[in-house]
Amino acid sequence: MLLKQSIPAKYILNKIKMEVLYVLLVGLLVNYLTAKFQHLIPEMPIGIPAFIGTAISVILSFKINQSYDRWWEARKIWGSIVNESRTFVLQLQSFVSPDKQAQIKELAYRQIAWCFSLGQSLRGLDAIANMDKYISEGDLDQIKKHSNKPLALLQLNALQIASLKNGGSLEIFSHVQINNTLVNFSNAMGMAERIKSTVFPQTYRLFLHFFIYIFVVTLAIALTGINSFFEIPLLLVISSAFFLLEKSATYLQDPFSNHPTDTAMTTIATNIEINIKQLLGETNVPEPLKPQGFYSL
Amino acid sequence: MLLKQSIPAKYILNKIKMEVLYVLLVGLLVNYLTAKFQHLIPEMPIGIPAFIGTAISVILSFKINQSYDRWWEARKIWGSIVNESRTFVLQLQSFVSPDKQAQIKELAYRQIAWCFSLGQSLRGLDAIANMDKYISEGDLDQIKKHSNKPLALLQLNALQIASLKNGGSLEIFSHVQINNTLVNFSNAMGMAERIKSTVFPQTYRLFLHFFIYIFVVTLAIALTGINSFFEIPLLLVISSAFFLLEKSATYLQDPFSNHPTDTAMTTIATNIEINIKQLLGETNVPEPLKPQGFYSL
Amino acid sequence: MLLKQSIPAKYILNKIKMEVLYVLLVGLLVNYLTAKFQHLIPEMPIGIPAFIGTAISVILSFKINQSYDRWWEARKIWGSIVNESRTFVLQLQSFVSPDKQAQIKELAYRQIAWCFSLGQSLRGLDAIANMDKYISEGDLDQIKKHSNKPLALLQLNALQIASLKNGGSLEIFSHVQINNTLVNFSNAMGMAERIKSTVFPQTYRLFLHFFIYIFVVTLAIALTGINSFFEIPLLLVISSAFFLLEKSATYLQDPFSNHPTDTAMTTIATNIEINIKQLLGETNVPEPLKPQGFYSL
Amino acid sequence: MLLKQSIPAKYILNKIKMEVLYVLLVGLLVNYLTAKFQHLIPEMPIGIPAFIGTAISVILSFKINQSYDRWWEARKIWGSIVNESRTFVLQLQSFVSPDKQAQIKELAYRQIAWCFSLGQSLRGLDAIANMDKYISEGDLDQIKKHSNKPLALLQLNALQIASLKNGGSLEIFSHVQINNTLVNFSNAMGMAERIKSTVFPQTYRLFLHFFIYIFVVTLAIALTGINSFFEIPLLLVISSAFFLLEKSATYLQDPFSNHPTDTAMTTIATNIEINIKQLLGETNVPEPLKPQGFYSL
Amino acid sequence: MLLKQSIPAKYILNKIKMEVLYVLLVGLLVNYLTAKFQHLIPEMPIGIPAFIGTAISVILSFKINQSYDRWWEARKIWGSIVNESRTFVLQLQSFVSPDKQAQIKELAYRQIAWCFSLGQSLRGLDAIANMDKYISEGDLDQIKKHSNKPLALLQLNALQIASLKNGGSLEIFSHVQINNTLVNFSNAMGMAERIKSTVFPQTYRLFLHFFIYIFVVTLAIALTGINSFFEIPLLLVISSAFFLLEKSATYLQDPFSNHPTDTAMTTIATNIEINIKQLLGETNVPEPLKPQGFYSL
Repeated sequence: MLLKQSIPAKYILNKIKMEVLYVLLVGLLVNYLTAKFQHLIPEMPIGIPAFIGTAISVILSFKINQSYDRWWEARKIWGSIVNESRTFVLQLQSFVSPDKQAQIKELAYRQIAWCFSLGQSLRGLDAIANMDKYISEGDLDQIKKHSNKPLALLQLNALQIASLKNGGSLEIFSHVQINNTLVNFSNAMGMAERIKSTVFPQTYRLFLHFFIYIFVVTLAIALTGINSFFEIPLLLVISSAFFLLEKSATYLQDPFSNHPTDTAMTTIATNIEINIKQLLGETNVPEPLKPQGFYSL
Repeated sequence: MLLKQSIPAKYILNKIKMEVLYVLLVGLLVNYLTAKFQHLIPEMPIGIPAFIGTAISVILSFKINQSYDRWWEARKIWGSIVNESRTFVLQLQSFVSPDKQAQIKELAYRQIAWCFSLGQSLRGLDAIANMDKYISEGDLDQIKKHSNKPLALLQLNALQIASLKNGGSLEIFSHVQINNTLVNFSNAMGMAERIKSTVFPQTYRLFLHFFIYIFVVTLAIALTGINSFFEIPLLLVISSAFFLLEKSATYLQDPFSNHPTDTAMTTIATNIEINIKQLLGETNVPEPLKPQGFYSL
Repeated sequence: MLLKQSIPAKYILNKIKMEVLYVLLVGLLVNYLTAKFQHLIPEMPIGIPAFIGTAISVILSFKINQSYDRWWEARKIWGSIVNESRTFVLQLQSFVSPDKQAQIKELAYRQIAWCFSLGQSLRGLDAIANMDKYISEGDLDQIKKHSNKPLALLQLNALQIASLKNGGSLEIFSHVQINNTLVNFSNAMGMAERIKSTVFPQTYRLFLHFFIYIFVVTLAIALTGINSFFEIPLLLVISSAFFLLEKSATYLQDPFSNHPTDTAMTTIATNIEINIKQLLGETNVPEPLKPQGFYSL
Repeated sequence: MLLKQSIPAKYILNKIKMEVLYVLLVGLLVNYLTAKFQHLIPEMPIGIPAFIGTAISVILSFKINQSYDRWWEARKIWGSIVNESRTFVLQLQSFVSPDKQAQIKELAYRQIAWCFSLGQSLRGLDAIANMDKYISEGDLDQIKKHSNKPLALLQLNALQIASLKNGGSLEIFSHVQINNTLVNFSNAMGMAERIKSTVFPQTYRLFLHFFIYIFVVTLAIALTGINSFFEIPLLLVISSAFFLLEKSATYLQDPFSNHPTDTAMTTIATNIEINIKQLLGETNVPEPLKPQGFYSL
Repeated sequence: MLLKQSIPAKYILNKIKMEVLYVLLVGLLVNYLTAKFQHLIPEMPIGIPAFIGTAISVILSFKINQSYDRWWEARKIWGSIVNESRTFVLQLQSFVSPDKQAQIKELAYRQIAWCFSLGQSLRGLDAIANMDKYISEGDLDQIKKHSNKPLALLQLNALQIASLKNGGSLEIFSHVQINNTLVNFSNAMGMAERIKSTVFPQTYRLFLHFFIYIFVVTLAIALTGINSFFEIPLLLVISSAFFLLEKSATYLQDPFSNHPTDTAMTTIATNIEINIKQLLGETNVPEPLKPQGFYSL
């Protein structure tokens, strides 16, 4: 997640350097050609690039909104993971026999593990990194057999809760109620995976780039009357505006990609760890994760 | 689902070749007529096609957004099928007597069958293809009597779960809880069928095409001052922009049509199969489905 | 619901014939007046109708989107009726004692009756037409006393289910679970009635018409330089574009009006009848309803 | 709620008479000044008011959509009150011992009272007007002690239902299920109060008015070339368009203000009364409320 | 929350004074340079700032809508806290043994404390200020150990309710039902924290400011023909319009920042206190919180 402190210009410009270069080349080429074949080139009414501009703004506005929706949904999913994780511990403490503190702690720690593992897994990183801080050796062996590690952790918790109920430490209705929370974990996990695995329709991106270049060409012709010292920077500035917006949207729409614009999953998981440990009455809690310069992960 | 790798230009151009041809003909015709009857043709202010352009962009922006919503809702439905399928197995393992492993497996396999059958059925393909890999002969005979195969599979699961409860292997509260998951399957199936069977209001498409042609004609007249070597390509490029956007939206709005832009139902169902089999502790799981060139189904 | 097959031009043009006539009259009048008092009429900059056009496109875009939302919500409501009707039968078969098949059938048939009755009632047609195919004489007498027939049917089902529970054929938890489905029917019915009985804010429609006429007048004055053989058709085409969009939206926003653009309630209710009868194991099911030319009801 | 029948022009014009007057004064003033200091006034390109127009249309489109959302949410809330009120009676009849008909009637009548009281309270009218038709003297004394009358009615119902359960006339699970309906009443009440008590961000309204006046001034200067017999009406018409849209939105955004654009709460509550009384088997039901001219309350 | 009464102009102008100053400087600079190097400066078509204007209006419209959504979601969250707090007390009174009035009061007061504490915590103020009015010394000591005070209060309530159930004063099903309300509190708290801790994508703000300055420069060049007594104020007015809209959106998007545009959390919590105390039958209730001039907190 990008923070409020100032974002380095370098970071932003890096995103569109290739596009700006192409626009520069196109601009220079059109400039050269129109100068050379001036008698052949008709006067281009400024209305023509305006039509292209209409199509561009329709797609841009669509894309910016839908990307934001994906990004905001991703954040909501992780927000619900925070809420449900707290709820989970409160429910264990409310419903399970008070003499099963050790098992409650085991379940709660496995839930912490699930949060970190899901974050790693969504980012395509090692989904069992640091797991030994939260789960046992046996658990670790168990989840290694699964291709979907967080799902395996969820199964371990579901089965242990079922065994608590079978052992008489949890009443059947409370079991059903805690099961609702597990269902919510399963939903949150699946929703995050959906955002991760669904490619935003690529055609819109292609068309957008295509239209921007057409826009640049027609605008360059329309501006031939203007001194080229002004024309080229103008082309660059206007097309950069469109490219920057497109890039920003593209980054937002993939919020689980190990980029600075990612949902801050590690930070959130650390907060969950702090909350859960304090609910368990532990005092040795970690510090909240510090941001990394202008963003936090 | 279209993937990130480059989409063949041929695939895209194929979509609008007829429209481009019509526009070419219209452009040439207007060009010929305006040349022939030049003294009769008044000067068309460039503002006129701009008004038409306003109407076009209102509909386009409406259509792009609503199509995306249908496409995204379709993906969400299949995402929830993933989540609920996993939940279903975890619930069976949590709630059903541990001595009923064979029945749990039978129910879980029938759930896999339901996913594949629903995908086939939505695409208008054979809804019982390959079913024998997951369900028994008796089941197959049973569902053949139904016109809605996935619904028949759902009924088989509902009745078997009821018989587990009647046989004492499932408590009444747990039965109700698992029933909630079955209700969610019924909802997901019905929601997908709703998207499949509801035609997007066709009038908007008709008007959009109508307006684009009017736009082309008025623009062609407005541009008569320009050399026709430039005018015709300009007309083609601008109208193609609008047609391409319209076509992309049209494809997105029918996500269960056996097209490359479809929701990747077969891929998702295969992932569900892998998840369910690993939750059952099986090791002989299939490979994730490979994409077919620039898209996956 | 309009189908994909081609919609007759006559159907579309019929919608706006009065408006086109008015615009024609306004166009001719302005044309005559500007010709007669040419020295008094100032030059109207083309920017003036453009400002009006801005207001028009803001309302149009608002109205198209909100109308579609009403139409789509109506379809979703009927989609949920499909899902819940199937769920209802599966729940009866899962939860009610197997020896009560006759009662299950009676409840299921009354549910079919409810679907047809709700559709008729929403369209302002006879809400007890053909009811004798699905419910008993006694039921029919009972519901005639109510002004809201579908609600009366729902009450009959609720009371019969309660008597099943009181008679020991349905456990209390299962009763509660089936009651949730009845609650959903009550919600679906009320949501459809809400859309039916809530008039879309009429002021926007009035303003839209007002603005379109102002637009026509100012545009007619702005175009006085143009030959009137071109001017009048131009006015008609551009204003028709706006009127057509407005009319399409107006039809969509009232989806329970016995129009071709209606939610296809009779078709959906017939499909529910087929599904329910097949779930009951019956073989004598009706055919799906055929569309009526370019639309289905 | 405004009805379909024609809305008096007087009603609409009344809304914006002050704004039109101001615009008239501004127009005349600019006209006078530009005539007097003609040599000082530069030529104003028509593009300048167009920029202001852009900002205006961005806010207008935002405001129209969000106001409609508030209005539609208000209607949805009252729709859900209809649904839940019916459900409430059906649940009482399904779950409470059949020998408690008197208490069921008392609870159902108190629910009718709640609907009317909530409507009055939201409109800032007397929240206990006509209550004696539905509730007892004792109830009336009880709710007078509360500042929030509908909440007091809800408490009375909640406590009576609890005493039915404590007296053995209602099973614990059914109690929980009916409690869900009470929770929904509490939510509906709170949601309506939220819309009532939340002021739509006023800054947007201020800016909108400010921009419209700036627009009028710049447009007036830009049009100085035009005969003032045409200029002033043009200014009035275009600015009226914007003011009318703003006013319509403003009225929609406060749907509980005792205005003709209000959610028709009294009409809805009367329909609930009819439904509930017919569900109770009573025949002496009131007539549906007649509309008051062009609107219903 | 800003109220309907007039907002001081000073408050509004204060927000954008720096931006207006920069625009003034830019305007004067461009004015000076274009006057000095007049022969070098080409004629800038007014269409160029129009393109920039397109990009500006796309982002502005996106930002205004999404900010409003955050603000409205924040208000909805607090609305649901109102509803659930009332529900919570009604449920305690319905489900807990009538002889536990003291404990019901203790739980209800702790809920009031939770509301105030959450509001303070979200605003970054002291989360245990005035807590001694509602909770015991022991509770206060307990929550001081937690970094998240409202979560600690929620845990205290959850544990006390669990002990009521273990002590036989609350049935297991009712426990589960009350637990749902606690889950909703946990969700509301987490949702508010999500809005608080998620920075709105900063890149859009940067681009918006960048585009507005580019817009100002190009517009200033385009207007060089105009007398600078008119040009500079025009630049200031148009750019102020854009800056004001951006600022308003920015304030709305952070509704928990101790600003006048905040969600009125203290007012809402006071209303909850009044409601809860009256539901408990207390007569010594506080006054509703008075607004502070043009806003309420």
